[in-house]
Amino acid sequence: MTTQPFRSDIGVIGLGVMGKNLALNIADNGYQVAAFDLDSDKVNTAINQEQAERKANLAPRMLGCNNLTEMLDSLAKPRVIVLSVPAGGPVDGVCNALIEAGIESDDIIVDTGNSLWTDTVEREARFKGKFVFFSSAVSGGEVGARFGPSLMPSGDKDAWQYVAPVWKAMAAKVDPATGLPIERFEPGNPVIEGEPCTTYIGPAGSGHYVKMVHNGIEYADMQLICEAYQLLHDGLGLSAHEVGSIFHTWNQGSLNSYLMEISAEVLQQDDPLTGQPLVEMILDKAGQKGTGLWTAVSSLQIGCPAPTIAEAVYARAVSTQKTLRVNLSSKLSGPAKIPLNDAEKAEFIANLEDALYCAKVCCYAQGFQLMAMAAKEQNWDLDFAEIAKIWRAGCIIRATFLQSITKAYQDDAALPNLLMADTFSESLSAKHMNWRKTVAASVMQGIPAPCISSAVAYYDSYRSETLPANLLQGQRDFFGAHTFERTDKPAGKKYHLDWSAKQRTLSKV
Amino acid sequence: MTTQPFRSDIGVIGLGVMGKNLALNIADNGYQVAAFDLDSDKVNTAINQEQAERKANLAPRMLGCNNLTEMLDSLAKPRVIVLSVPAGGPVDGVCNALIEAGIESDDIIVDTGNSLWTDTVEREARFKGKFVFFSSAVSGGEVGARFGPSLMPSGDKDAWQYVAPVWKAMAAKVDPATGLPIERFEPGNPVIEGEPCTTYIGPAGSGHYVKMVHNGIEYADMQLICEAYQLLHDGLGLSAHEVGSIFHTWNQGSLNSYLMEISAEVLQQDDPLTGQPLVEMILDKAGQKGTGLWTAVSSLQIGCPAPTIAEAVYARAVSTQKTLRVNLSSKLSGPAKIPLNDAEKAEFIANLEDALYCAKVCCYAQGFQLMAMAAKEQNWDLDFAEIAKIWRAGCIIRATFLQSITKAYQDDAALPNLLMADTFSESLSAKHMNWRKTVAASVMQGIPAPCISSAVAYYDSYRSETLPANLLQGQRDFFGAHTFERTDKPAGKKYHLDWSAKQRTLSKV
Repeated sequence: MTTQPFRSDIGVIGLGVMGKNLALNIADNGYQVAAFDLDSDKVNTAINQEQAERKANLAPRMLGCNNLTEMLDSLAKPRVIVLSVPAGGPVDGVCNALIEAGIESDDIIVDTGNSLWTDTVEREARFKGKFVFFSSAVSGGEVGARFGPSLMPSGDKDAWQYVAPVWKAMAAKVDPATGLPIERFEPGNPVIEGEPCTTYIGPAGSGHYVKMVHNGIEYADMQLICEAYQLLHDGLGLSAHEVGSIFHTWNQGSLNSYLMEISAEVLQQDDPLTGQPLVEMILDKAGQKGTGLWTAVSSLQIGCPAPTIAEAVYARAVSTQKTLRVNLSSKLSGPAKIPLNDAEKAEFIANLEDALYCAKVCCYAQGFQLMAMAAKEQNWDLDFAEIAKIWRAGCIIRATFLQSITKAYQDDAALPNLLMADTFSESLSAKHMNWRKTVAASVMQGIPAPCISSAVAYYDSYRSETLPANLLQGQRDFFGAHTFERTDKPAGKKYHLDWSAKQRTLSKV
Repeated sequence: MTTQPFRSDIGVIGLGVMGKNLALNIADNGYQVAAFDLDSDKVNTAINQEQAERKANLAPRMLGCNNLTEMLDSLAKPRVIVLSVPAGGPVDGVCNALIEAGIESDDIIVDTGNSLWTDTVEREARFKGKFVFFSSAVSGGEVGARFGPSLMPSGDKDAWQYVAPVWKAMAAKVDPATGLPIERFEPGNPVIEGEPCTTYIGPAGSGHYVKMVHNGIEYADMQLICEAYQLLHDGLGLSAHEVGSIFHTWNQGSLNSYLMEISAEVLQQDDPLTGQPLVEMILDKAGQKGTGLWTAVSSLQIGCPAPTIAEAVYARAVSTQKTLRVNLSSKLSGPAKIPLNDAEKAEFIANLEDALYCAKVCCYAQGFQLMAMAAKEQNWDLDFAEIAKIWRAGCIIRATFLQSITKAYQDDAALPNLLMADTFSESLSAKHMNWRKTVAASVMQGIPAPCISSAVAYYDSYRSETLPANLLQGQRDFFGAHTFERTDKPAGKKYHLDWSAKQRTLSKV
């Protein structure tokens, strides 16, 4: 471990996959990094990697610290320290340790983990006066962290001004002419041209909220692709390679996205051990880390319909209950197989492409409406055009499609739902019949497509000027005297029918 | 207000619709009730009603109290006081006021509101030593409270022994021979024969948890009926009266339930003001009080698939966004109307009856699995056969159908999901094709049926020995190095493919 005196620009605490790669990314951009992890092996790994990847004529850009005091001593003031430790208790643990080690009131700690946004709000208040607790959500996985993630910073605005140059340097970049990511995955050769995928989101917590919703959309988008895979594999009997090839083709069109691209790659990957398609050797039990379910929980609490996101979370839950599924598979009947001819297969595939597109628009509509409703509740002034912009590169849900979302919010910053934007109402109006055929086919074939089909119900619910909630209010008034409004009376006036009386009378409440 | 000296058996605080009716119910059963509300008008209303309904030869059974001290003075010790105040802060407010008024450590306060179950757990601990905080969830709406609700008590077991005679007296009763509710809605003539719909549920919080899930199922069941109404009204063009008449017929068969019965009544009710069907004069914006969303939130947090319950919560949320729906109704296209002949209409109605039955079984399966998973997490020993039993009368989701659930859990107390019970796997296996046809028709006709259709996806997901979560784990490993298990290796062994390398290699993690 290096021990020579060293003045660093920025500290990084926590050198797991994400922390190490963020540290290397920052170093690549010319900053001196002081790195610390409780596990000294991880410090050595990071130092060695920096050394191995550094150009021969350059001085070391990373200092391994033996403890927090060493880190504090090496940093220019006011200090900036990036935390990349697991969300929850560890964040507080490190913050408290830094206080003991002598962090000062104008030093800035930037939490980059997947923290629950309300924890972030609470921490900013709690640590006020000890240091500035700032946060920056990070999306992009390990490759993003190394070569350019999407960064969603929020909190104290002066802190943002201070760290912004580093953030803009390490963020992913978009070619302003095409709106496409500039992808260059070369150590020591960071992308410096283009528009950086980071923008100040708003007050404490807002950045993590936005990242949480990003992940909720990601859950739904991943599940949609998985449903398409199952429909093609189980429904049409296509091999993993064949499905991968269809996804590859779709990735050239309106479904272009990072997730579609890597899904094609995963499906075309053979297993090094058996030579079989790797996907068929992977156990069908999905893990999760919580951000998807937080999104669904928040949508329920706020009263924003986000059924497709919730279905994606439930789909992961069902997947983990493999024993129950295996037992039920022999107890519950499904439909007989319906063989399709080649023309019908081609039509099925074409319909499915439209279905995926439509369902995907609904997922984004749910996520953006949720952010808008949360912003209203929290009094955040979120710029949705900018948020869509910084998701165009670096992050997991990057897709050409986000250009249209940016445009929609540039045209109308107060758009209540993406389905109100002409670009989406027109494309969905054009494609919805094929979407419906896909859903009907999946149901008649007995292949589950919870997200693709919940999105149709979402679309049709919002298309319904009148919903049967009138009967529901009637039921509630009947059993619980919960009252109802009338279509022919002013809003807010409540009525109750005396259902238990022999001669039922209406009263104004 | 009566002020003579009076020794009461039980106090009731909070004389809204529920509290007043519980007080009258208890008085009907021969107990002396001390009644208090901050609003003295409500006290007078309760006293007057008790007097008006009491048989001429009986002494008063209700004492109106001017304050809490008067109530405490009038009650036999150890005192039992029923709270019927809004969930949340008011419960704590009354508890603290009772401490100030001199409540004693062995007195029992029974919270009967729709409290969040975790608040109940926390309150039991917090008030220990001051008094015994016990709780009893109540289902049955105003009529149930008055003439026999379903009661779900939980907390200190000695407290239960003490209050049990009152609880058994005021609870709804089931005819043990038929399993049907004994319904007699006569003041002064309570039902005393039959099996009381109350049983000790378990430790503090468990009763409110069970009631919360009851309400989640109720949300879904109500929404299913509403979807059927919309399909018949918008899809087949039937009038409210015609739909009511179909529901009345269904209520004689396997769909027999209180909710089906009252839905038929609501649909056949004419509006006293206009003479139109009342339901068509009711605004289609549904209210909610929180228990449905708590159920959905809990299911997400526990990892129990409950998509049909979540969809029902979202359906209420969509309904409230009327302005957006009206605006979107003219922007988003739907399918052209498909006219049906009489034979097709009859088939549609028959299919829909099966669809409702199947979807309803899935709602209950979701609710009961959720309770089982929560019980495991909380270390509660819940008796699901008993829980199904006490829901057979008094409560909003009472239905003959609950007999089959009781039987299923009597046969196998550890049933992981109701779909594993022969009675349900057989009936769903027999009816699923009609269910599918209903969902396909709703999607092709553009009529939203989020709950009926999400339930099919739930059924098919659990029927799937293999789900596409293998691709999902591949995606997660690709972008986040989240690793995966293999189908050909022991459970728990994690693998990672080095996706970013030119020569991808597999490593055991």
